[in-house]
Amino acid sequence: MASEASPTAALLLIGNELLSGRTQDKNLAFLGARLAARGIVLAEARVIADVPSVIISSLNTLRAQFTYVFTTGGIGPTHDDITADCVADAFGVDLPIHPEAEKRLLAYFEERNIEPNADRMRMARIPEGGTLVDNPVSIAPGFSIENVFVMAGVPRIMQAMFDNIEPTLAVGPKIDSVSVLCDLGEGTFAAALRELQTQYKELDLGSYPMSSEQGRRVALVAKGQDKIALQKVSADLTQMVLNLGGQVHQE
Amino acid sequence: MASEASPTAALLLIGNELLSGRTQDKNLAFLGARLAARGIVLAEARVIADVPSVIISSLNTLRAQFTYVFTTGGIGPTHDDITADCVADAFGVDLPIHPEAEKRLLAYFEERNIEPNADRMRMARIPEGGTLVDNPVSIAPGFSIENVFVMAGVPRIMQAMFDNIEPTLAVGPKIDSVSVLCDLGEGTFAAALRELQTQYKELDLGSYPMSSEQGRRVALVAKGQDKIALQKVSADLTQMVLNLGGQVHQE
Repeated sequence: MASEASPTAALLLIGNELLSGRTQDKNLAFLGARLAARGIVLAEARVIADVPSVIISSLNTLRAQFTYVFTTGGIGPTHDDITADCVADAFGVDLPIHPEAEKRLLAYFEERNIEPNADRMRMARIPEGGTLVDNPVSIAPGFSIENVFVMAGVPRIMQAMFDNIEPTLAVGPKIDSVSVLCDLGEGTFAAALRELQTQYKELDLGSYPMSSEQGRRVALVAKGQDKIALQKVSADLTQMVLNLGGQVHQE
Repeated sequence: MASEASPTAALLLIGNELLSGRTQDKNLAFLGARLAARGIVLAEARVIADVPSVIISSLNTLRAQFTYVFTTGGIGPTHDDITADCVADAFGVDLPIHPEAEKRLLAYFEERNIEPNADRMRMARIPEGGTLVDNPVSIAPGFSIENVFVMAGVPRIMQAMFDNIEPTLAVGPKIDSVSVLCDLGEGTFAAALRELQTQYKELDLGSYPMSSEQGRRVALVAKGQDKIALQKVSADLTQMVLNLGGQVHQE
């Protein structure tokens, strides 16, 4: 589907709480949608535990393989916040206090009469060569180093950080999509959909059963760069549903 | 935290729709909680696209590394349902029609006056040597082969399949947890929490900021096998919060 020129990305979601079922991840869907809107193909996401060797090796694998790697989680002040340490290790660089990050944190703490203790100031440590990512929510910055962007795990903070990262990313060819919602079972249209996929090689066709209170609903989705082909396939998908005795519904 | 004897697991969530942001995954949190309850450590989850080479290599990497691998998605009747094909490829075995799966599907379709077309009957293809996993929701079975369990992506069907898989899995040492909800910032208790972690080496201590309408809430969580240590640390965590001028809240 994506042309050769599409930038690619991987996501590394770091945190035991995501794997234990304690926390429902919301960062993958947010970043997937925002990257797609910029023409960047999110190719893979990995959810890993707070284990240094796993964080380091996953990061090194992914940053060699994709245009961008985004990490979430593990940049707070507590003992299990080890992402910055692991990123520094992965790049083989030191993790000094970053003067600008320190300045921002000290000003923020002073204003709020919060003690700038050693744990809080850990959040000013940035791998050598890293660039700050502003955090308008709670000040403690994320950072980027080469093609890796390190963000907070709390969705509201992560989203604010990504807003600041986004303009620095390459823009890929825009992938548009059309969607036709129907009430047919997948087995009913599978052959016709397969045939349409053969006709529209430049598009990606898929079908996604959805839960609905109105009875069975399956979304037929086409994606690609060719807007004229998308318009045509949208009409063909609708006709396919009607030909097979189904109905088209509003999404 | 987990003893040497803990079985481990990885999760392979297959589907473009999870990476594009179209579908919010719910399978990771469900399986993470259920595996933890059985004493199986979910060590990693990967979300990957419907690309055969990626599915095959991810599966081969993970099945060599963990006690169990669970996959979700891609076992329906449409052209982009390629998980069974990829699993057969990964194991180097054929993908014939499984007589029992065929029998179940034919009976189900006949009862409902549904045409057993070629696409629907693709769902009876099971890798050579595979064992069926019953699907009480929509009949088309999942399957297991060696240490790999292949399930549907639709949460309701996946959950029903997992209910059938669960009794066949090893039982690991039970990991219990205690949680103390407080209103302190992480930077306030980080040093004290670090000190407690040093005291309770047999436990895993973590802190998780949560969104709340009542103001700041952070969950202090301890996990481990030693119930007496967990009771003790629960009291110590509460005392820590009070010593630091915080309040303990109901979760």
